Amino acid sequence: MHTDFTQTRTLFDLPEGVIYLDGNSLGPLPRGAADRVARVMTEEWGQLLIRGWNSAGWMDLPARVGDRVGRLIGAEPGSVTMGDTLSVKVYQALASALDLADEGRRVVLSDTGNFPSDLYIAEGLLGSLGRGLELRTVAPEAVEDALSDEIAVLMLTEVDYRTGRLHDMARLTEKAHALGIVTVWDLAHSAGAIPVDLRGAGADFAVGCTYKYLNGGPGSPAFIYVAPRHADRARPALSGWLGHDAPFAFERHYRPAAGVSRMRVGTPPILALAALDAAMDAWEGVAMADIRAESQRLTQRMIALVAEACPGLALASPADPAARGSQVSFRHPEGYAVMQALIARGVIGDFRAPDMIRFGVAPLYVTQADIDRAVAILAEILDTGAWDRPEFRARAAVT
Amino acid sequence: MHTDFTQTRTLFDLPEGVIYLDGNSLGPLPRGAADRVARVMTEEWGQLLIRGWNSAGWMDLPARVGDRVGRLIGAEPGSVTMGDTLSVKVYQALASALDLADEGRRVVLSDTGNFPSDLYIAEGLLGSLGRGLELRTVAPEAVEDALSDEIAVLMLTEVDYRTGRLHDMARLTEKAHALGIVTVWDLAHSAGAIPVDLRGAGADFAVGCTYKYLNGGPGSPAFIYVAPRHADRARPALSGWLGHDAPFAFERHYRPAAGVSRMRVGTPPILALAALDAAMDAWEGVAMADIRAESQRLTQRMIALVAEACPGLALASPADPAARGSQVSFRHPEGYAVMQALIARGVIGDFRAPDMIRFGVAPLYVTQADIDRAVAILAEILDTGAWDRPEFRARAAVT
Repeated sequence: MHTDFTQTRTLFDLPEGVIYLDGNSLGPLPRGAADRVARVMTEEWGQLLIRGWNSAGWMDLPARVGDRVGRLIGAEPGSVTMGDTLSVKVYQALASALDLADEGRRVVLSDTGNFPSDLYIAEGLLGSLGRGLELRTVAPEAVEDALSDEIAVLMLTEVDYRTGRLHDMARLTEKAHALGIVTVWDLAHSAGAIPVDLRGAGADFAVGCTYKYLNGGPGSPAFIYVAPRHADRARPALSGWLGHDAPFAFERHYRPAAGVSRMRVGTPPILALAALDAAMDAWEGVAMADIRAESQRLTQRMIALVAEACPGLALASPADPAARGSQVSFRHPEGYAVMQALIARGVIGDFRAPDMIRFGVAPLYVTQADIDRAVAILAEILDTGAWDRPEFRARAAVT
Repeated sequence: MHTDFTQTRTLFDLPEGVIYLDGNSLGPLPRGAADRVARVMTEEWGQLLIRGWNSAGWMDLPARVGDRVGRLIGAEPGSVTMGDTLSVKVYQALASALDLADEGRRVVLSDTGNFPSDLYIAEGLLGSLGRGLELRTVAPEAVEDALSDEIAVLMLTEVDYRTGRLHDMARLTEKAHALGIVTVWDLAHSAGAIPVDLRGAGADFAVGCTYKYLNGGPGSPAFIYVAPRHADRARPALSGWLGHDAPFAFERHYRPAAGVSRMRVGTPPILALAALDAAMDAWEGVAMADIRAESQRLTQRMIALVAEACPGLALASPADPAARGSQVSFRHPEGYAVMQALIARGVIGDFRAPDMIRFGVAPLYVTQADIDRAVAILAEILDTGAWDRPEFRARAAVT
């Protein structure tokens, strides 16, 4: 497979004058998605009405789209299903992992670079369960040494949302397993960004969202992976009817479906799944190895250009391209205002408190010319102090 | 307010030749919803990209749509938020209710007519929590007598999904409170179907879905209500970042937002919320008392016509219109095939195992002529035995 990036770029319709380096937060609209959703609304919902569940295949969308996502993350066919939000899927994965872990173990290990929602969800779950369970967080680089036979579950986000720092999934999973630890991997900044090999790494559970590098749209559904060796034993904490073995038999008691389907909960969100399904078309004929090579080339170039042209910025991402995902982050004491000034000039990245500006590099639609132009504008803003204006310092509700 | 049903009917675009009596399962497409979603996709997601969260007001949609739903169920402004699926919201409401209940109490009381997913979710939650918690189900008519100071939480669906039997929310809530019981009401078949007065009834928690009588589309988001007197004390079991007091501060520990916003979990599903928001336009100028009066008139008429023309059908719904919601159900030993034959003739209702055919009556778009014609076709199918064909007996995956 040889990925043709000139072709993939034509699948996205970016606004005139915008250089979009925020696909690590919300991917752009794929051209096919609007048409697909319009058809689902008027032809399927509008004409088929309730019959859409059968005749338009709505009920199977979570599994079908799950397999398309699964291909990009090295999952076995039939081991991924879609639905809910990432936070809900973290809850299910962690609860199931704790169930499979040694009963005597009390510690869930994570790192301080994990996305806060994952940590919040873990706090809530462990608090509900009681049993003396403890959430322990260490610095990302201290995770490996913190593994011990006291740990029940290792729960990590593979790519750090702030810095792009990359964990070594294969090595950490192997070491965890040698110590009897169950693993939960959050692939929010991995799926569609870097090659992931869940099967090869022997991962136990994985979750992720689809509105970043997979371009599923704002609030598009999450995914969950359960290793086939666990899937028929995992107890879904959220035991909803669509995870039942026979949802439409309306039995009185819950009996989990076979495999990962038991991680389904409620009625699937059809409009959102249809948009995501259309977005997944952009990945046909795309090799993740090509994405990785192009992403590394572009991020290296960006780092080199910034080092030369923007002395006020400190690189916050690992300098080694093998040690980071598909984003580049820099620190600036007035990072928020700098990013607002950039956005006003059409270069869209984002800001993460307290001082980090982030640029997501998605080779499906980001070009070398985009990188060059973005850095030139960034340098100009820093050189001229153009960021130092009240309207750029005023914080919006959502940053 | 005087509801003009001739006008509300024009807001829905039903297929030629279809009489739609399944709005209790999936409401039809409101004309405005397809346009609204198309605009959100191309103008907001496509053009604003990540900026849509602020400048298109995406982040506030759960609260804004929540207030629109809240008006129909007698909720205080600011006491309803949208997101996730009904099963997930049942989990949150029940977990929070258990937290507020007397610690010494061990029983969650429900009824055998509750929707299975609610019972499955409760089984899963109670199983996870341990502590000797027990889910007890009694027959719907035995609920009142089963209330005692042993009960922690009373969890009921107000309108029985099979028969349409209606619980007396005000009386049961009052009696529950007198015994120190916390209440969770599922309004799946109530919201948009019958007048609900959560505030007047003093309800503690309520949840519901929006794809039935509210016409939000397949898999549209659920709602959750927390009585303002509890909202700042309720601990959301799913403590996701968007329920945090300052989601974008990325703090290390969870601090719940004030009020019902703490029941938000992950990133809101914008396409689905936009469709639902457009669907809520149909309720402007509509009085639930008018909906109730018209629904009772139409369901009474249907029952009378069926009694006359279809002797093979047994009424499964309460005969007293005050004792049922906005649906009529009948039993027939070959109910599944009868319903398939009806659907083939353009009369769409649905079937619930083992022998029930259901007809949802939504006055927003169902007319007296629809009811008359539907019963005439039903009578003809039963008289001629037209249902007794292999293609009508063959079960589809989703019924």
